Amino acid sequence: MTAIDFTAFVDQLAATSGDLILPFFRTALSVENKKPGDFDPVTAADRAAENGMRALIRRNFPDHGIVGEEYSDERADAEYVWVLDPIDGTKSFVSGMPAWGTLIGLMRFGEPVFGMMHQPFTRERFTGDGAAAHYRGPAGTRDLRVRECAQLSEAVVYTTSPRLMQPDERAAFATVEDAARLSRYGGDCYAYCMLAAGHVDLVIETGLKPHDIMALIPIISGAGGIITTWDGGPPQTGGRIVAAGDVRVHRAAMAMLKAGMVG
Amino acid sequence: MTAIDFTAFVDQLAATSGDLILPFFRTALSVENKKPGDFDPVTAADRAAENGMRALIRRNFPDHGIVGEEYSDERADAEYVWVLDPIDGTKSFVSGMPAWGTLIGLMRFGEPVFGMMHQPFTRERFTGDGAAAHYRGPAGTRDLRVRECAQLSEAVVYTTSPRLMQPDERAAFATVEDAARLSRYGGDCYAYCMLAAGHVDLVIETGLKPHDIMALIPIISGAGGIITTWDGGPPQTGGRIVAAGDVRVHRAAMAMLKAGMVG
Repeated sequence: MTAIDFTAFVDQLAATSGDLILPFFRTALSVENKKPGDFDPVTAADRAAENGMRALIRRNFPDHGIVGEEYSDERADAEYVWVLDPIDGTKSFVSGMPAWGTLIGLMRFGEPVFGMMHQPFTRERFTGDGAAAHYRGPAGTRDLRVRECAQLSEAVVYTTSPRLMQPDERAAFATVEDAARLSRYGGDCYAYCMLAAGHVDLVIETGLKPHDIMALIPIISGAGGIITTWDGGPPQTGGRIVAAGDVRVHRAAMAMLKAGMVG
Repeated sequence: MTAIDFTAFVDQLAATSGDLILPFFRTALSVENKKPGDFDPVTAADRAAENGMRALIRRNFPDHGIVGEEYSDERADAEYVWVLDPIDGTKSFVSGMPAWGTLIGLMRFGEPVFGMMHQPFTRERFTGDGAAAHYRGPAGTRDLRVRECAQLSEAVVYTTSPRLMQPDERAAFATVEDAARLSRYGGDCYAYCMLAAGHVDLVIETGLKPHDIMALIPIISGAGGIITTWDGGPPQTGGRIVAAGDVRVHRAAMAMLKAGMVG
C-alpha cells in the first residue's frame, strides 16, 4: 500500500461487515426492490454492513471520503476515499449460493490503491495493492498470481449473466464465448478473484458501477492481470469491463468485442 | 433410512473422499478430456476419490453394488447399490469456484433411499432419506425444508447452463425463465441443495446421468420438494429433470416445458 498502511484497518472493516452480514445469510429476507419490475434485492444485511463500515471509517479517519452502494457519498473529493459494496452478488446471496462477497476499495487522489474481497461465509480474503495480491482462507495464505493463457481458444471465460447485457453487448460477448475453451455464468466478484488466483482467464461484464469494480482492480493488477473497459480505458468508473490474466487474451477479447459491437 | 442405518458409514465415505479431493482443489490440474473436442475435465481428484469410496464400500459391504462416474459398475443388481459422483460440477471445480460437491447415493431394490451432497471446501453436508433432510455446516445443523412459492412469476430458477441444452430444450427452458422472477446459471448439485434449503424454487436441467441426480432425490423429497423428469416420470435415470419446492410451481413449469418442446 502507498503512504499509510491500512491493512489492519481493512481487516477490521471486513470483520465488522462479516459479523453484520452472516446472520442474514440463508434466512428469510425481506427483499425490497429498488426499481419496480427489476429484481435488485437490497437486504437488511447490505445496509447494516455498510452502516457499520461507514461508522468505523468516520471514527478512525474522519477526513476520509466514503462512496458506497446504499447511501450518499461523503467527502468524495478527499485525498483518501473508501469505496464499499457490502454484498456484491446479491442474487447469489438471496439464493443461498456462496459466490458473493464484500468489496472494500481505497482510492487515493482518484486512483485505486488497495482492495479486498471478503467472503465471510467461506472465511476467505483476497487483497491487492496493484503491486502484489494475497489470499487468506481456512487452509492458509498464499500469493495470488494469474496464469498464462496464450490464446482465446484455451481460455476459461466468466460473466455473471448474459441476461444482464444489452442485445448488442450480448451478441459481441457471444463471439468471445464461442471462441473460448469454456464459458461459465455466475460468479460476480468471486470470478475476478479466481482470475487473480490463476483458475480463470477472462471475465467480461457490462453495466458495472464503480463500487462493483474498484476494490477488484488492485487485486487483479497486483496478481499480474490486466483490467480495462471494453475499449481499453481505465476501469474505475465501471461500465463494460474486460479482465484477463494474460495480455494476449485481453487483446484478443477486446478485438472481438469491438468487432462484435460494430457488426 | 430404511432397514439398516448407514448414516455413520456415509460420513466415513464423505470424509475419505473429501481428504482425497481437497489437495487437488485450486492447484494446477492435469485435465484429461473424455471426448475430444468436448470440455469434460476428469481430474486426478475425481478418480482418487471414487477409488477411495469404492474400496471403503467393498471392505464394509462386500455384497453391495457400486455405480460411479469414473469406473465400471460392480454388482449393479444387488439389493443395495451405491451411486457415486466424486465431483459433480467439475467445471466449477477447475475454475476454483465452490459450487461443486461429492454425491453419495444409496439405492435399495432400485429405489433411492439415502443421499448426501458433501462440499468438503465449505465443510457442508446435505443429507436426506425421502422422509426428512438435514444440513450440517461450520455454523451448525438444521433441518432442510423447501419454501412455498405459489406461482412461477415469484420463482427463482436455476440451471447449470443453457449452453448444455439442445436447441429445442433451450427454447422451452427460455419460456420458463422468462416467466420466472429470477433466472440464474451455475450451481450443479449445489442449486438442488439450495432448493431443499428453501432459497431456490426451481432447478431445470437436461442430459443428466443417474449419478448426477440419484443422491439428490432423497434430499429434495425429504425436504418436501418434488423432482421428476420433464414429463413427470421418475427422476432416477436422469435425462431432463425438473425439481421444485412447491408442487404448484412444478406443475406450471412442466406445462411450459411441454408446450415449449412441441412449439
